[in-house]
Amino acid sequence: MRYQLYYWPTIQGRGEYIRLALEEAGAAYTDVARSGNGISAMMRMMAPAKGTPPFAPPFLKAGQLVIGQTANILLYLGARHGLAPKAEAAKLWVHQLQLTITDFVTEVHDTHHPLGPSLYYEEQKAPAKKRTQDFWKSRVPKYLGYFEDLSAANGGGYVTGRRMTYVDLSLFQIVEGLRYAFPKRMKGFERKIPGLVDLHDRIAARPNINAYLASHRRIPFNEDGIFRHYKALDL
Amino acid sequence: MRYQLYYWPTIQGRGEYIRLALEEAGAAYTDVARSGNGISAMMRMMAPAKGTPPFAPPFLKAGQLVIGQTANILLYLGARHGLAPKAEAAKLWVHQLQLTITDFVTEVHDTHHPLGPSLYYEEQKAPAKKRTQDFWKSRVPKYLGYFEDLSAANGGGYVTGRRMTYVDLSLFQIVEGLRYAFPKRMKGFERKIPGLVDLHDRIAARPNINAYLASHRRIPFNEDGIFRHYKALDL
Repeated sequence: MRYQLYYWPTIQGRGEYIRLALEEAGAAYTDVARSGNGISAMMRMMAPAKGTPPFAPPFLKAGQLVIGQTANILLYLGARHGLAPKAEAAKLWVHQLQLTITDFVTEVHDTHHPLGPSLYYEEQKAPAKKRTQDFWKSRVPKYLGYFEDLSAANGGGYVTGRRMTYVDLSLFQIVEGLRYAFPKRMKGFERKIPGLVDLHDRIAARPNINAYLASHRRIPFNEDGIFRHYKALDL
Repeated sequence: MRYQLYYWPTIQGRGEYIRLALEEAGAAYTDVARSGNGISAMMRMMAPAKGTPPFAPPFLKAGQLVIGQTANILLYLGARHGLAPKAEAAKLWVHQLQLTITDFVTEVHDTHHPLGPSLYYEEQKAPAKKRTQDFWKSRVPKYLGYFEDLSAANGGGYVTGRRMTYVDLSLFQIVEGLRYAFPKRMKGFERKIPGLVDLHDRIAARPNINAYLASHRRIPFNEDGIFRHYKALDL
């Protein structure tokens, strides 16, 4: 079965966590909105009608099924592609960690959009600076410290044990994104998360991920996505 | 089996979506932090150690299992207490909607804390006013319009069909919370969501929910929770 991924075609954004999972799994998929009339097709899927219209991208079409919400899509894919354990308790634990990453991603977005998604960054630069200060003072240490501790508790394996899951792929993206958006701040911070940096490197070196990152399928970071590099926010 | 719910003892907050599900199900549970040394017990469960420490409350202890993240807990409870369908596609759909409610709840919180959770509201009143304006102009119509459309598509039943799910319980809480926090704004808005208002009323009238709301187990809304009433933000 060929999956159809629907997400904004010019950013990594929340869709990237799905792309990484599909690529690692070697799954066949079409990144629908990146071709021809793909954006119109995506918007039509979201039109309120009967059925199960998603609230927002990303969403995944798998046969007849349309699944929305990043963590929910990974919950579905994880079970099918060996990217998560099948037993209920372990499956819920991995999903729980992905939901915690989801919360963190929202907080990353809020660093440049504290007054909400409708205004441009340029209209909220001063509040963005304040929010970013708190983000690096309190939130990054809390979230990444949590995942660093989990990683350490597993003796340098993966975050939930000896086998890689979609959570590890997402943590790769978190490290990569923070490096892009806040190179100076992140450089200073990385010594506090040696386990996550090592995890990042091991994920990047996996053959499927390595090939993906070098391909045109990987959209470069830019200032329309979640991780944005604004010098004013990076000290 | 008696569940143990761990959540802050003086607010409804994110724990309330779990409380409503447990109450509707008639499940036996202890609201741990509301008794004796409950808060210490909760903090100990979150201490980074081996196992599966939750990142933050709420979390639920079900036998040996400790489950965190509100929507994840409801995913677990829904399957066991007839509060969600058992078939995979329908189960994912209901979970997807709960995750969309989760996103909305974060945006509710950000109305009074746009600069982040570390500062007090009193330190961010002006940005809070701006964020709240956008929240009511763009976000409330988008989110509640989406759920209103789903409700209408089901001909006045429940949001996902003829049977009630935990999503309906959560939407009750959303309507109740917006009425508390923004009574004037919500009064004007309710004519746009007749289906959700009717759903709210039907949920409130259910025997178990009705008894719960009249009990001491229901913590009153207050200005430490997610839904806070600040006159300056309500027009």
